[in-house]
Amino acid sequence: MNYKMIGRILSMVALAELLFMIPALLISVAHDRDVATNAFAVTIGLVGVISLVTYILCMRSETRFYAREGLVSVGLGWIVLSLIGCLPFYISGEIPDFLDAFFESVSGFTTTGASILNNVEAMTEGMLYWRSFTHWLGGMGVLVFILAVIPASGKGSGFTMHLLRAESPGPDVGKLVPRMRQTAVILYGLYIVLTILDVIFLLAGHMDLLEAICTAFGTAGTGGFGVKNDSIASYSPYIQNVCTVFMILFGINFTCYYFLLLGKVKDVFKDEELRLYLGIITASIIVIAINVRPMYDSVSETVRHSAFQVATVITTTGFATTDFDMWPTFSKMIMVILMFIGASAGSTGGGFKCGRLLLLFKTLRRNLEKTLNPQKIKVVRNNGRPVNEKVLLSLYTYLIAYVFIMIVSILVVSLNGESMTTTVTAVIACFNNIGPGLDGVGPTCNYGGLNMLSKITLIFDMLAGRLEIFPILLLITRKTWKKLV
Amino acid sequence: MNYKMIGRILSMVALAELLFMIPALLISVAHDRDVATNAFAVTIGLVGVISLVTYILCMRSETRFYAREGLVSVGLGWIVLSLIGCLPFYISGEIPDFLDAFFESVSGFTTTGASILNNVEAMTEGMLYWRSFTHWLGGMGVLVFILAVIPASGKGSGFTMHLLRAESPGPDVGKLVPRMRQTAVILYGLYIVLTILDVIFLLAGHMDLLEAICTAFGTAGTGGFGVKNDSIASYSPYIQNVCTVFMILFGINFTCYYFLLLGKVKDVFKDEELRLYLGIITASIIVIAINVRPMYDSVSETVRHSAFQVATVITTTGFATTDFDMWPTFSKMIMVILMFIGASAGSTGGGFKCGRLLLLFKTLRRNLEKTLNPQKIKVVRNNGRPVNEKVLLSLYTYLIAYVFIMIVSILVVSLNGESMTTTVTAVIACFNNIGPGLDGVGPTCNYGGLNMLSKITLIFDMLAGRLEIFPILLLITRKTWKKLV
Repeated sequence: MNYKMIGRILSMVALAELLFMIPALLISVAHDRDVATNAFAVTIGLVGVISLVTYILCMRSETRFYAREGLVSVGLGWIVLSLIGCLPFYISGEIPDFLDAFFESVSGFTTTGASILNNVEAMTEGMLYWRSFTHWLGGMGVLVFILAVIPASGKGSGFTMHLLRAESPGPDVGKLVPRMRQTAVILYGLYIVLTILDVIFLLAGHMDLLEAICTAFGTAGTGGFGVKNDSIASYSPYIQNVCTVFMILFGINFTCYYFLLLGKVKDVFKDEELRLYLGIITASIIVIAINVRPMYDSVSETVRHSAFQVATVITTTGFATTDFDMWPTFSKMIMVILMFIGASAGSTGGGFKCGRLLLLFKTLRRNLEKTLNPQKIKVVRNNGRPVNEKVLLSLYTYLIAYVFIMIVSILVVSLNGESMTTTVTAVIACFNNIGPGLDGVGPTCNYGGLNMLSKITLIFDMLAGRLEIFPILLLITRKTWKKLV
Repeated sequence: MNYKMIGRILSMVALAELLFMIPALLISVAHDRDVATNAFAVTIGLVGVISLVTYILCMRSETRFYAREGLVSVGLGWIVLSLIGCLPFYISGEIPDFLDAFFESVSGFTTTGASILNNVEAMTEGMLYWRSFTHWLGGMGVLVFILAVIPASGKGSGFTMHLLRAESPGPDVGKLVPRMRQTAVILYGLYIVLTILDVIFLLAGHMDLLEAICTAFGTAGTGGFGVKNDSIASYSPYIQNVCTVFMILFGINFTCYYFLLLGKVKDVFKDEELRLYLGIITASIIVIAINVRPMYDSVSETVRHSAFQVATVITTTGFATTDFDMWPTFSKMIMVILMFIGASAGSTGGGFKCGRLLLLFKTLRRNLEKTLNPQKIKVVRNNGRPVNEKVLLSLYTYLIAYVFIMIVSILVVSLNGESMTTTVTAVIACFNNIGPGLDGVGPTCNYGGLNMLSKITLIFDMLAGRLEIFPILLLITRKTWKKLV
């Protein structure tokens, strides 16, 4: 294991994060919030010194950097990111319990949006900004950011490729352009443009600037932290619809936007994952709207709430405009299934991903045909191109690991003694990075009441969910830390 | 498709079933139950004629018989089996609704034990016998029986192998002896001996003969239909313990018994699946006993109820001595997970199977290691022998199909408007051939209140669960009915 190189990457992660903490510090200063200002300043000062020392100590490292190092760097990088991110909450006393602060920070960076707070509106401005910003940074990934801004270190493409692969969601991460750094720049460029567009549309609905920025951060990262106790429910229908549209947009594979810019419109609309994603959204909105129609006054209100809730759950954002825990079982069940499905690969959304689902379905069909006719050799195709069997093997592994982690987590969380629905949906909502579940962790409740063991399990689930399992699972695998033969 | 051969197999299935219906007819005669006697007589007469005609019409068939024909024969064979099996219930009027009668029959043959009856004790003796007998026949399989009693037809081993493979549970069905017919004979021999032992032990506890036979049928097939409204709860602790032990015994791979007879004791106790199966049972009993201790008067009562409920659920039998729906969430969650795990491959129990779980876990570990070290080639081993990659591919396919069927079924059943727990556990309990779920379909409730669509879905799930998905899934796959190229 190339420990020095990993140390260097971790200190770079920390320094980048501190850089992003400065706006939060300035906002606290501008609002005369001394305690918050102090908390940010202490964090930046203390962590800054430690990170710089680590960076200097790890300067001279070997260049050996394999998939293993990439996965470990990403896994550890996100833990460091979350630990530093929770310090302002804890030092300022706005979240007095350290585990709660860490939970909130992990929930932020992993774009889950599960909160332990029961009164968000009591937080100071700088903290609210920082809390929402964690979503934005976590959505596209901190390592992708570092790759985008730091000049190529000449360590070869292996280095950047392994990091980008391990941090980006999806079964098969493609390069947009031959050079990885360029890919990272394009991704962040699109991300920033879309976020700014979202802010502009929200401001046009007479939203306050800080609220608009925070809401856009939560939407862009498909996170779900809001600035109001009732999430988006008290905002105007216009604002709610803007959120719906942007949530759906941020759940689309960013490659599609890049191709749109290049004028390859046909390619985009032929994309099988995009069609599935939009198809599921449309179908779910229609079916749910019919099912919940009697609960709302008008058709437009029904459709608005259905569309918002479908968008918030399939993109794993976790905002809410209505308490879908009150919906009939059929609609609730659709919501739970959408929680599992999740957004598109290569988007900021979480979950199992539409692309993976599509591949699973195609594999199932292929393998069934093989049962009928064992002699015939058939490849699985994605957008017309054959899919490498290695990708399929990793897909199966992903599914198996997904199921195992889900079962163990549910068992541990059930020790809380909450209802079955609470227990199961808490794990689903955290593992798929959604935020609210049903019943005791429904849209109107929070995770504050769970015991320590459950919170730790859900923290593991959130990280495993965001990083697509392997980087986190490998951290607790003995073989990872052994010498390779 | 070799339709004539399939027709012949189906008529053989029907004739074998009618043969088994004679004891039920005689019991009805002995108890002067005219309506029931009439129902059995009509069924035997009518179906007998149709089956004989079909058999004669399909006498001259080609010998071509591939995996496809085997799967289709088994899938259709079980539907025919269930259709005929439900006729006595329906004709006698003891179950006046045809769909309900069919549900009960499918539930019987698939050894699920999910009932639509709310008053079992109102049934006549012959019907109760027949209802329990369906468990016994379904447990080991009707085609396995036919293969055991009918002399080899000289069609080559392909014929018998494909049928036995498709009907026997487990990821990798091994032959006990080189000849398939011999294997079938050994399996049924062991099955009959164990069942008789069970009856003797129950009679020793002063159980009535008919009740003992019915209870033994339900135990042997790991079915769960009882003859009392409160299942096994009102019987003595001795009887309950006898049931616990025999349920666990019938959940063990029958190959183990064969090896025991051959004196290969060491091999049996080294069997990885057996160890896992017994390990899970022991651990679950201990953990649940500690968790539910405050609910019962004495330690022995606590252990008895824990052991019984663990045995009934992991072997997917479905008897009950206590309402585990009243247990704390942690224990209930363990029960739900046990529902998924199921018994051993090659036993009469259902579920996902311990052997499959073990293979999945090993595959996960292997594939994770491959992520760390892509160059290294490593095979997955089962009891020390390398597992063919084809078996693994079929395992993945099974998992994918399992998940898809589960999701679609839950969605359809949720249209009933029952609670989330009812909806989800109804599907789990039927798909894994357990019987009772939780809440509205818990140990003290029944499936009678569900709507038609739900019942049809659950019928599909029960059949798919018992036949391990593929034979049933292929029936509704278009390619199955196309000419092979």
